[in-house]
Order: sequence, then structure tokens, then C-alpha cells
Amino acid sequence: MFKGLSAFPLTPLNAQGIDEAAFIGLVQCLVAAGVDSIGALGSTGSYPYLDRAERRRAAALAVEHAAGIPVMLGIGALRQRDVLHHAQDAQAAGVSGLLLAPVSYQPLRPDEVYGLFEAVARNASVPICVYDNPRTTHFDFDDDLYAALAALPQIGSIKIPGVPTEPEVARAHVSRLRGLVPARVTIGVSGDAFAATGLNAGCDAWYSVIGGLFPHAALALTRAAQAGDAARAMQLSQALSPFWDAFARNGGGMRVMATAATLMGLTKPDSLPAPLREITGAERERIAQIIAACDPS
Amino acid sequence: MFKGLSAFPLTPLNAQGIDEAAFIGLVQCLVAAGVDSIGALGSTGSYPYLDRAERRRAAALAVEHAAGIPVMLGIGALRQRDVLHHAQDAQAAGVSGLLLAPVSYQPLRPDEVYGLFEAVARNASVPICVYDNPRTTHFDFDDDLYAALAALPQIGSIKIPGVPTEPEVARAHVSRLRGLVPARVTIGVSGDAFAATGLNAGCDAWYSVIGGLFPHAALALTRAAQAGDAARAMQLSQALSPFWDAFARNGGGMRVMATAATLMGLTKPDSLPAPLREITGAERERIAQIIAACDPS
Repeated sequence: MFKGLSAFPLTPLNAQGIDEAAFIGLVQCLVAAGVDSIGALGSTGSYPYLDRAERRRAAALAVEHAAGIPVMLGIGALRQRDVLHHAQDAQAAGVSGLLLAPVSYQPLRPDEVYGLFEAVARNASVPICVYDNPRTTHFDFDDDLYAALAALPQIGSIKIPGVPTEPEVARAHVSRLRGLVPARVTIGVSGDAFAATGLNAGCDAWYSVIGGLFPHAALALTRAAQAGDAARAMQLSQALSPFWDAFARNGGGMRVMATAATLMGLTKPDSLPAPLREITGAERERIAQIIAACDPS
Repeated sequence: MFKGLSAFPLTPLNAQGIDEAAFIGLVQCLVAAGVDSIGALGSTGSYPYLDRAERRRAAALAVEHAAGIPVMLGIGALRQRDVLHHAQDAQAAGVSGLLLAPVSYQPLRPDEVYGLFEAVARNASVPICVYDNPRTTHFDFDDDLYAALAALPQIGSIKIPGVPTEPEVARAHVSRLRGLVPARVTIGVSGDAFAATGLNAGCDAWYSVIGGLFPHAALALTRAAQAGDAARAMQLSQALSPFWDAFARNGGGMRVMATAATLMGLTKPDSLPAPLREITGAERERIAQIIAACDPS
């Protein structure tokens, strides 16, 4: 399941918890577009901010409305006990894969991260994607840890944080990573600005923020790369570069996507978990203009 | 209450939740030593790893066994809703102060951090200590935000992450910070290696990790600085420098204190919240030797 376009929807919230109608609507857009998998409760989907009941509900809704498209669910938490609960709940809800990042408060050591994944793997009946996101976890995987984790039979993919921008360097990077892991473990690129370069360099999957709201644009890029049309994939990425710039200006894609979803009428305003806020002022206007100019839907 | 030695105990855990006997024992040591306040559920006390019921229980136990010594309680969490719940519970338990760090997963913007503190302040009946700990929160306060937060009448202290090592530079640094905040707001140093320099430079409080386990050593240092004997305070800090080095080698003080507490028989082994682990191997031996050599209790 860890191949092609994995689209990561927002999890819009309201005073009661999950804004279920809005969340279902976002999932249905992904289904209609025909994404390869749905990455519910990713970073864009606010997983670490949600309590157990909210995560359980999001998992159930995502699976129910995915129309058979595989759902991968984020299960990360600061405490291993909670991660194990979330894994159990996710599997009970019928997800096809688990997404696990080493979320930290006290900086984690590699042996602690390995122990966490080992404990989850021991209890997993579906494959696990190792989520390497140093921007939010402040943990840096090294080659030894990649290799040790990928040797656990339950590991199905590694979600890497971008690739080098030079195509040949990116290809060498992905080849090197592939040499560390068994053939069953796919390598997926994240950091949307790197998607075309990563897919062109041989990544099996794109774990996509923009794909959670603009699945057609993300699918076109993915399919071009999968068809071997590297130039077209790069063109399509270039066309989306105002989004990549907005992500860079706004501390990542989440607030941009949440603001865009509100501007497009897909979510109600202020659906992020406080203290996180939507983007306001001139930058919000700029996002409205980017949506209009790129017309990515 | 935000003056002198504030000692931060561990919150030992077991399979059931809080190891209550061990936690009470740690609090009682602080009471017997006569610390100025108890910082329960600080970073050393694992606050972000605990659920609401565990935090409520820890607050009740700390207040019950503090024998009238003021208890400050950590209430930080990723989500503002949870922070407000923890604040409410802490106040119901009878704490004298709240300790709030801008815990993050998605990096926070200054306006979001201000909004968080403002929301908590609006509901607070006890003073709040602003907890600036970039090592764990990955948020950097600037002068404008310090000043804006300190203008909220419920803010009683700022817990700063160390001071410059040169005494004169440290003094200038603390004076400059004091110029940003009203007189009612104390400035407390954290980062135990900086404590003597910080207190000598005019900090009102030491928010102390080592004080949570070795209160006599921390009190001696604090009282020397308070009495104006800067040289003696520095000597006492120097005597504890094997601990400061161990903190630096082991990603902060928490694992060192947890390992020391086990070695001293004050907690059962493996009382940290998984995936965090105690220190093992040669480094554990080294910690045992440091305890023996420094004899800080």
C-alpha cells in the first residue's frame, strides 16, 4: 500500500471535537480523485493534538468513507503506552497501515526510538511506515537506525524528509537508502517541494500534504513521474511552487492548507487545534491568490 | 512564591501509573530539606507524558505532602484545551502556582504562544511561571514576547534557560531582562550548570533539576548566593560539575536523575515513561561514582 500518491487530509476540529462533516468531505474528495492511499492523522491531520477518542473516531470515519482505498493512520504520541493504544484502535477500525513518528519532548536516543518501533511492531497486524520528520520530532534518523528498523518484518515503508535538489544527487541518495532496507520496504518522499525530484529519483511514494486538499494536482505530478516523464513532473511541481514558497514562509504546510480549506469553503474557519491558528492578514490574501492562480483542483 | 530554590522532583511511574510511594518519598525529602518551593510535574517530572488523571493525582499528592511549602505544577500540553483542563485541575488540587511551557509539535508562532498564555491567564487564580525551555519546546522567546507576557497580571515569573557564563555578562543579561518586565515578575534561572552564575547575577530563583533529588546541595548553593557569597556559590557549583557534565553527556538532566534515584534506592528501576529509558552500561557506573564522590545529599 505504500506506493504512489498518499494524500494527507486535514482533520478539521470544532468545539465538540472533529468536524465530522468537513472531515468526511475532505476524504470523499480524495476518493473521487482516485488517490492511491489516504494518510489520515498525519502531521497535516493534527494527530498529536488529538485524544484517543478523537483519533478513534477519525480512523472510523476515514475507513468508512475511503471506498476501499487503503487508509494509513498516524499513531504517534509522546508516550509508548499511548502509541500502543492508538495502534490497537487503528487496527480495530480497519486501517491498512500505521504511520509512526518518534514524537519527542525530551530528545530521544536511537535505542529508545528502536525500542518504540519494536514494541509497536510486536503488536501490529498491518504494516508500519517509519515517519522521519525532524522538523516536528527533532529526531534525526541515521543509516544504522533505518537499517535496524527496516529489518523488523512489520515495517513497510520509510517516509523520508525530502531529497537533495540535484536530480543525480537525489538518485544516488535514494539508491543508497534502498541499499539499507529490504526490497519489501518502500521509500516515500515527503516535503512537497521535493516530491517531483524524489519520485524522479526512484521514490516509490509521495506522502503528500498538498494532495490532501488538491489531489488532482498531486496525482498529475505523481502519474507523470511514474510514467517516466521526469520533465513533466518537474513542470507540474514548478507550477505549484507558489505553494511550496508559502509552506516555507509559514512554518510548513499545515497552516497553509488549513487556511486554503477555509478559503475554499471546505472547512469552517479556525478548525486547527489551538494554540495553532490559521494565517491572517496579507499572507492570507496571498494564499487566496495562489489558489486562484494555480487552480490546482 | 517564585523565589529561592524551587526543586523539581521526578514523577516515578510504574505499570499502573504513578508510583505513589516513591513520588511521596521524593516530595518528603524536599520538605525535610526545606526547599523554598516544589516544582512538581516539571520537565524532570515528565509532565507532557502524563494523562489528565495522572497529573491530577500527582498534583494532589504533591500538595498533600508538601507540608505547606508552595507547589508549582507544570500544566503544559500540545493542545490549549488540555492546558486549560490541567490548569483547572491544578488549581482545584490547591497548587500555589502554574508552570507553562509552549510545548510544540508544529513549530509555534509568537502570536500563538501569546494566545495560549492569555487564555490560561484569563482562567488562572494563582500566578503563572512562563517556562522558556527551547531544548524541549523548540520555541525561542524574544524580548517582545517576554514583555507582552509579563504585562499579563497573572504572570509571576519567567524561567529562563541559563545565562551567559561570564559573571558581568550574566549580570547585564539579567538586568536587561528585568527591564522588560514589571517588578512583580521574578526571573528564575534553569539549566543547573548556570545556577550559581544566574543567582549571582541577580536571578530571584533557581528552578532546579538536581534540587529535586539532592535538595541539600542545591540549598547550600542557593543560600550562599542569596547571602552575597558569590565565590562560595561558584565553589559549590564547581563541586557539582560532574553532574553538569553528566547532564550534558546524556541529553539533559532527566535520565541522569532517574538513574541516580534508582541507584539510590529511592525509585524502582525503569520508572521513566517509555520510550524514555534510564542510562545503562559504563555511563550508569559513572553516575554511581559521581553520586559517591560528590556526596551531594
